[in-house]
Amino acid sequence: MSLDIQWLDATAEDFSTHLNTLTAWEAVSDQQVLSTVQSIISGVRQQGDQALVDYTCRFDQRNLASITDVCLGIETLHEARQRLNINDEQALVAAADRVRQYHEKQVQSSWQYEEEGVLLGQQVTPMARVGIYVPGGKAAYPSSVLMNAIPAKVAGVKEVIMVVPMPKGVVNDWVLAAAAIAGVDKVFTIGGAQAIAALAYGTESVPKVDKIVGPGNIYVATAKQLVFGQVGIDMIAGPSEILVICDGKTDPDWIAMDLFSQAEHDEDAQSILISPDRDFLHKVEASIKRLLPTMERKDLIATSLANRGAFIWTPDIDTAVAVSNQIAPEHLELSVENPQALLPKIQHAGAIFMGRYTAEALGDYCAGPNHVLPTSGTARFSSPLGVYDFQKRSSLVCFSAESASEIGQIASTLARGEGLTAHARSAEYRITTKE
Amino acid sequence: MSLDIQWLDATAEDFSTHLNTLTAWEAVSDQQVLSTVQSIISGVRQQGDQALVDYTCRFDQRNLASITDVCLGIETLHEARQRLNINDEQALVAAADRVRQYHEKQVQSSWQYEEEGVLLGQQVTPMARVGIYVPGGKAAYPSSVLMNAIPAKVAGVKEVIMVVPMPKGVVNDWVLAAAAIAGVDKVFTIGGAQAIAALAYGTESVPKVDKIVGPGNIYVATAKQLVFGQVGIDMIAGPSEILVICDGKTDPDWIAMDLFSQAEHDEDAQSILISPDRDFLHKVEASIKRLLPTMERKDLIATSLANRGAFIWTPDIDTAVAVSNQIAPEHLELSVENPQALLPKIQHAGAIFMGRYTAEALGDYCAGPNHVLPTSGTARFSSPLGVYDFQKRSSLVCFSAESASEIGQIASTLARGEGLTAHARSAEYRITTKE
Repeated sequence: MSLDIQWLDATAEDFSTHLNTLTAWEAVSDQQVLSTVQSIISGVRQQGDQALVDYTCRFDQRNLASITDVCLGIETLHEARQRLNINDEQALVAAADRVRQYHEKQVQSSWQYEEEGVLLGQQVTPMARVGIYVPGGKAAYPSSVLMNAIPAKVAGVKEVIMVVPMPKGVVNDWVLAAAAIAGVDKVFTIGGAQAIAALAYGTESVPKVDKIVGPGNIYVATAKQLVFGQVGIDMIAGPSEILVICDGKTDPDWIAMDLFSQAEHDEDAQSILISPDRDFLHKVEASIKRLLPTMERKDLIATSLANRGAFIWTPDIDTAVAVSNQIAPEHLELSVENPQALLPKIQHAGAIFMGRYTAEALGDYCAGPNHVLPTSGTARFSSPLGVYDFQKRSSLVCFSAESASEIGQIASTLARGEGLTAHARSAEYRITTKE
Repeated sequence: MSLDIQWLDATAEDFSTHLNTLTAWEAVSDQQVLSTVQSIISGVRQQGDQALVDYTCRFDQRNLASITDVCLGIETLHEARQRLNINDEQALVAAADRVRQYHEKQVQSSWQYEEEGVLLGQQVTPMARVGIYVPGGKAAYPSSVLMNAIPAKVAGVKEVIMVVPMPKGVVNDWVLAAAAIAGVDKVFTIGGAQAIAALAYGTESVPKVDKIVGPGNIYVATAKQLVFGQVGIDMIAGPSEILVICDGKTDPDWIAMDLFSQAEHDEDAQSILISPDRDFLHKVEASIKRLLPTMERKDLIATSLANRGAFIWTPDIDTAVAVSNQIAPEHLELSVENPQALLPKIQHAGAIFMGRYTAEALGDYCAGPNHVLPTSGTARFSSPLGVYDFQKRSSLVCFSAESASEIGQIASTLARGEGLTAHARSAEYRITTKE
């Protein structure tokens, strides 16, 4: 197969411009999509279950008698689990166990301390109920169910509600089995903007949640943006990306396959390889050409590599790291001899895969860390999905009579400086003048 | 002054409905505002500094020769600080010190652990550059500068950029002094949607930031929503609220003033008092009537108490806590004998002020915890602004050859289950068959 991957030279004068063009991504929100989603949301808010039934019949080509047809009990999930072959089921359980163990390290606890008559602290509590959106049809991934549901359960969320569309009523046993293993509490086989609206506002049957997480198509993403504020949401994900930094000493076939593993997601996925070894870049290019025809998703891979893939030559590894920091990649593979030494220099990355053996694909399924990661440079300001996304904090403050009197003076001065006299007087009531 | 505050009885059959109506708040985004903001953002993206100068002259009635007229150096901030009287300046410093000390307890650290040849962990890093929006004119609050800038500096953010409009060129010394004390690195005297656009996309003079925090009017809030994804943002705040639970044994005047201290913010602010002591509620009502005419902002207070204030009688304190959990208030005052005993029952609240001496106003200025808190029930899923809002995490994964071989089997099985064969083969390359 012919394949032209872009080559960039980090020392070229126009490198910055090329890099910006390469990594540019802006989700365009179509006015048509927006108004469709707005009307679906208001439909669900006004008509509740009936709207859900109507939209689901129409969009998912289903034949529903009533809302009860979309409610799946826990027993249905366990039946699906039992239908999996034992090897597959055990792989899911092993992945779930590793993901759970890692996420248990993320649990945050309440704390208090007292100083000079003032108790201060933070109370950490789980959200009460969260919703997980799982795409249906061909993009139905059991690993996503684990990655979204397990952190919520580890955080102590009592009720995890999963929604998953079931086009034409076809059940995906993998997805339902993963829900059983992750401890999902309730499943509704609905999807699209109507599922998001139901979770955000509640209907007679679908309970209103506090936060909605999980990936979805443009209708789902738009609906999430519109209900943000009413409920919490996770980030709106862009296309998946990998950036591999290699010192030139990893098997080129391995690196080629690592690049493929992102490229096979979709046409907009981005695979970038950076190396100070120009010969190595040529070797990986040769591996790509040789291996590509053997891939099941070869057309998809070829398209995304041609559209958004790149080889970047840098004079040294430090420059490679600097380029990576500019990109702030979702997945960063440090395929080098001593990856620990590079860590302090990495400023922004969703997840860092260290060493030649740590294929990014391991992280997608069962390394332990979450595979829901900030894309499109948003690692500059956001984090992998985690237990902390399902916990929230309340500040704690307790003043003794004496400390309220003393600190009240400061509050009174500042409140009067801002012209807020009720604030000032509220503090002043607690000031006792010394006799 | 005549004043009708709504009374509710938590045992009444229709209580839930009344409570929902009382606390309902939905920010309406006006189509007119939206298109104005969209055009301002695209103006700034296309014309950079020149657009900033034009918008600022037009909206802030300023007479600017060039962009340099809106850039304030650190020395200008220190001059403003020196113009404050010594008592005011010391109050700001004392508040900043207390806020800094509290926030230092929130710093999160990187962690790693190794188990059976797999190193896992999380690297925690500060954002590189953040923007702080500070409203200008009459709502210019130095305390907001401290509360937004200090957590960023404690997190280790290198560059904190403040934007604050300066209508008609009038300088607010309090705000600039607070910026000096908080360690703000650069100030631009611009505001509105144009300031948000400049921070999100950068111009020739204003550097692009990673996250924008701070309150603003509807144009600012709309602009923040539109640039979300390009940069991180904090929550879009609704009107401020206080919920006081009192056992009936606090001075009614104190409680009345605490309610006033929220009500004086704006017409939509909400002040609610819950008590199992009906006589006490009457006493507070009497205090309100007596004290109201003495207040500088009496009209504003009367309007917000009449519009959105309420007294709620509950049969006991536990029911009061249950009602509070339904509301998920921004500020919760537990004006009771033993507030610690109630803490485990509080599920959702932005900040909890414990005991009769802990006026909420202390928390607004100098208790230590942040005064940027989740409003309108969003405490169900969000937290006070904190150091954690300016740090982000990268997952760490490092497999040895042996562990990659073993765990790779699980990844391979699951990847093939999902039909992602490049993922599977990337893992399989690292599997060594035993001889």
